[in-house]
Amino acid sequence: MKVITLLTDFGTADHYAGAMKGVMLGICPDAQLVDISHQITPYAITEAAFTLSQAWACFPKGTVHLAVVDPGVGSSRRPLLVEAAGHYFVTPDNGVLTMLYDAIPVHEVRQITASGYFRHPVSRTFHGRDIFAPVAAQLANGAAPSEFGNRIGNYVRLDFSTPVLIGERTWAGTILKVDRFGNLITNFDSETWRRLGMQMFQMGIGGKSVSRIASNYAEMPEGELFVIEGSAGFLEVSVNRGSAAERLGARSGDPFELQLR
Amino acid sequence: MKVITLLTDFGTADHYAGAMKGVMLGICPDAQLVDISHQITPYAITEAAFTLSQAWACFPKGTVHLAVVDPGVGSSRRPLLVEAAGHYFVTPDNGVLTMLYDAIPVHEVRQITASGYFRHPVSRTFHGRDIFAPVAAQLANGAAPSEFGNRIGNYVRLDFSTPVLIGERTWAGTILKVDRFGNLITNFDSETWRRLGMQMFQMGIGGKSVSRIASNYAEMPEGELFVIEGSAGFLEVSVNRGSAAERLGARSGDPFELQLR
Amino acid sequence: MKVITLLTDFGTADHYAGAMKGVMLGICPDAQLVDISHQITPYAITEAAFTLSQAWACFPKGTVHLAVVDPGVGSSRRPLLVEAAGHYFVTPDNGVLTMLYDAIPVHEVRQITASGYFRHPVSRTFHGRDIFAPVAAQLANGAAPSEFGNRIGNYVRLDFSTPVLIGERTWAGTILKVDRFGNLITNFDSETWRRLGMQMFQMGIGGKSVSRIASNYAEMPEGELFVIEGSAGFLEVSVNRGSAAERLGARSGDPFELQLR
Repeated sequence: MKVITLLTDFGTADHYAGAMKGVMLGICPDAQLVDISHQITPYAITEAAFTLSQAWACFPKGTVHLAVVDPGVGSSRRPLLVEAAGHYFVTPDNGVLTMLYDAIPVHEVRQITASGYFRHPVSRTFHGRDIFAPVAAQLANGAAPSEFGNRIGNYVRLDFSTPVLIGERTWAGTILKVDRFGNLITNFDSETWRRLGMQMFQMGIGGKSVSRIASNYAEMPEGELFVIEGSAGFLEVSVNRGSAAERLGARSGDPFELQLR
Repeated sequence: MKVITLLTDFGTADHYAGAMKGVMLGICPDAQLVDISHQITPYAITEAAFTLSQAWACFPKGTVHLAVVDPGVGSSRRPLLVEAAGHYFVTPDNGVLTMLYDAIPVHEVRQITASGYFRHPVSRTFHGRDIFAPVAAQLANGAAPSEFGNRIGNYVRLDFSTPVLIGERTWAGTILKVDRFGNLITNFDSETWRRLGMQMFQMGIGGKSVSRIASNYAEMPEGELFVIEGSAGFLEVSVNRGSAAERLGARSGDPFELQLR
Repeated sequence: MKVITLLTDFGTADHYAGAMKGVMLGICPDAQLVDISHQITPYAITEAAFTLSQAWACFPKGTVHLAVVDPGVGSSRRPLLVEAAGHYFVTPDNGVLTMLYDAIPVHEVRQITASGYFRHPVSRTFHGRDIFAPVAAQLANGAAPSEFGNRIGNYVRLDFSTPVLIGERTWAGTILKVDRFGNLITNFDSETWRRLGMQMFQMGIGGKSVSRIASNYAEMPEGELFVIEGSAGFLEVSVNRGSAAERLGARSGDPFELQLR
């Protein structure tokens, strides 16, 4: 049994995800289809990149990950097939794999050109169904990556994944995502945090400041803002039983500043 | 492996879809269960009809499609089992299959009467779990359609699927659905549009007017209203990186007028 | 094929449910993964308890139910493995199984201590992925419950599941949940209602009063408030084609009073 995951900004109200799954089951009837999310903010490449980066490595090797957040559908952006760490990724070339490329420096990127694998006629607006789904299902069925197109080197990488040192022990970073609970997931990784040593700090977001760190939610009083090493491997800004995003008026993509004392 | 799809207005927060799936897996343990949508606007038959019409044909032959949008649950509306194009449809008789009947003129409609297949006791308010789910799973298991009841001819067909010619080169139509991106999917099909030839047009919706056509989203400036041949096979009204529904104050079921010059 | 159900308050926008599924498929590749709900109101144990109680018995024996609504993650609350009626439940010990314990008096509760089954390193904030998911998948794979830890007796039971007699033929009860349609599901069970006999009644909620009972939605005029024996086995307060919750300003957890004449 081959696993195929889906990550899109199509939502779950419309027929889009269902249509893609129908196409895949027609090609690979015993696929295990797993939704990672269809609720990426429309066109939000960064949010999709982060979400995929958190999920893919939990799946077994051989999994095919379909990631279709595609503001450029119908334009000349290229469809890609990427192999990394024994996983396959099928996606438009728009930077959604930036964090994967960072994490797995050895990866093979191919431009999908073998239109014989596509569903015809290929529509102008739904390449998820007509290009990406059939390619993913053929891969799950055992087709070799090289059958889909040649390797390329000039694929899109974006620059949102690491904070920048802007002063003495001071970093400018980015909120990668706001999760359902209103936790702000920053791009400051826990490993760096630990390497720098436990100490006084001040994190500024949206004109406010956070300076406490917690080791779990339950230890903090309700309503208190704090920083925690999140399960994603990054510092998160949280409120016990509340929404840090609401308290700080912050959204994914927003900047923050972290100063260590 | 048999595929069973689900289309309901039950939402995904409650136990309803899960309960139906549990019942089906008890009867047909190796079913491939695929959600098309559980987020049809409550009781919106037209929206459900459109959504199903866009998804079913993407699935392999033999698929069983369960479509339960059922404002009449507990009343005398009949449960149906329909065969068309090698697919099976299990649904209350309320017009949700209107677009299927249009698309596949040769179809067999049965009234489900074989209560031996039902889950007992049959509740008054949850026929999805007690009637439709077990019938779908038994079908997926290989039971013959004729075991469930006799053919009938007087099933419900509604009248929302095609625009009406109301003047010289002028049509009155209906918005079938607003998708997640705020695109308005009209009932004016792309084939008719092409047959009439590329030309000047004016589409009036909500007191405003649209007169540009695009071949893909990316080619239009941000914020510009335009018409596009959508992946659904119908004209759609869109805004690049914005919501046409918000811009026009339009909702599914709203009328529009299309005048060709 | 073993079925594993998921019930969480993680939502479907983030990577959380997908990550748990990836971990489970790595351990038990042919699992049937079924979402009951990921949209429990964050930290709402009562709502989760009710939702699970409505779904689990629809599944075949041997099903593993993963229920992770876990405000205490990272604190000392215990992970549990419960056997009841041939089903398995894997969950933090926070009362979410209260209605199961009521319904199935003979049940075995174990504290999960066998950390060899966990995913390492165990994060502080995502035990769903690191503890509960791998234990559920190992169970689905055939591991014996006794391998995961010893039986305990002092597990958490909460007190929200039955109304209290507070006067002559007068009960004080709790709204267990508001469903998607705005129906208020009370904790007054239909069986007791029937045993008391059909009669005049007055139900007070949010300063308003309901005194009609219906046997199905369709028989009531649009907009009329009424009580109905719901599919969940409890009295529900409903409005035909409308939201009782909006009409009464009521939410899950709210009190009601029922007086029989």
